Amino acid sequence: MSGKQITLWTHVGGPNGWKVNALLRELNVSFESKYVEFSNKDPEFLKVQPNGRIPVIIDHNRNDKVLWESVAILLYLVHHYDKDNKLWFTNEDEISDAHQWLLFQASGVGPYFGQKAWFSNFHSEKLPSAIERYEKEINRVLGVFEKVLDGKEWLVGNKYSIVDINNYVWLVMVPWLSGQETLDKYPNVKAYIGRIGEQKGVKEAYAEKNSLQKH
Amino acid sequence: MSGKQITLWTHVGGPNGWKVNALLRELNVSFESKYVEFSNKDPEFLKVQPNGRIPVIIDHNRNDKVLWESVAILLYLVHHYDKDNKLWFTNEDEISDAHQWLLFQASGVGPYFGQKAWFSNFHSEKLPSAIERYEKEINRVLGVFEKVLDGKEWLVGNKYSIVDINNYVWLVMVPWLSGQETLDKYPNVKAYIGRIGEQKGVKEAYAEKNSLQKH
Repeated sequence: MSGKQITLWTHVGGPNGWKVNALLRELNVSFESKYVEFSNKDPEFLKVQPNGRIPVIIDHNRNDKVLWESVAILLYLVHHYDKDNKLWFTNEDEISDAHQWLLFQASGVGPYFGQKAWFSNFHSEKLPSAIERYEKEINRVLGVFEKVLDGKEWLVGNKYSIVDINNYVWLVMVPWLSGQETLDKYPNVKAYIGRIGEQKGVKEAYAEKNSLQKH
Repeated sequence: MSGKQITLWTHVGGPNGWKVNALLRELNVSFESKYVEFSNKDPEFLKVQPNGRIPVIIDHNRNDKVLWESVAILLYLVHHYDKDNKLWFTNEDEISDAHQWLLFQASGVGPYFGQKAWFSNFHSEKLPSAIERYEKEINRVLGVFEKVLDGKEWLVGNKYSIVDINNYVWLVMVPWLSGQETLDKYPNVKAYIGRIGEQKGVKEAYAEKNSLQKH
């Protein structure tokens, strides 16, 4: 063990590990990142994560508790390491709204954005109608954010929270996924990404990501 | 208003509304279902649900609180209507594990199963390599369940919970999605589906679904 509170199994290119990295930094929880393959088949890794995906945390403060699924990890970290609810809520309707938007990212943003990345960059053949399907979904999802962010700085409860960190890692990929000019059509989303990018944890996490990608 | 506690906007064919229907029945919360289109563009509906997807609940007991995203609704319903935690947990690590598996369904099961349904049945052209991609993912996901269910009746905390209801609505579609014989390769999953299908709420919900689909 490294003496750090948390070990984070993660990946440089994939977005979901950076949610956790940013939150750990925001909460000043010490951690060590272990970078593994994107779809990992290492038996050592599969022993703790049967689904083979990053991120995974091991919490050395809590009897080496293992947890995976990035949104579940965010909820775990605010429960155990954000006792003042700096990045979470106490009002029960705000908690429900936060769950709703966390799930919208997990089930509606990540999968569609991810399938666009797959068919544009990694699939065995070019399938224009599949690419077009996910390009349309990205624009539909951006339209949802654009509408609900109208007049709002943050998505839930008028404060910065894990909901915003959770959205950031995917929204910031739009220029790569969908073309540099796409966000110009969604000024509320563009401003929202800018605001999140100025927060301490996210700023530090993406500085680390950029430095790793340069090597 | 109908005098029911909850209005549920849902869809007969789509799986996610049946999670909520089954849980409301299990918890004996009265509700009225309103069946709408799968990808809804009705301005009345879009006013409460900017993402246009079912399920959505309106809770008439709680000042007509509106909530969408099926997993967020399950969490809401156990918080407000399952005070004895019959279908939820009190141990904090079990709660985290439950979050993990709820998110695995939302981000890993639903999207891949759903894209298989899309490319096999609804896409504008036949794309064999896209269908093959999602067929492989279905089998990979079934393999994850098969492994973790070894020696277990329920997924989390040795008790039936919303985690199992949440998986059921997708797992029960495998014979349609992927061929009748597929589940024979996954005996733990097959037995798990059978156990969940015997629970009161799920049984009643699927009796309703079957009767609606006959018309």
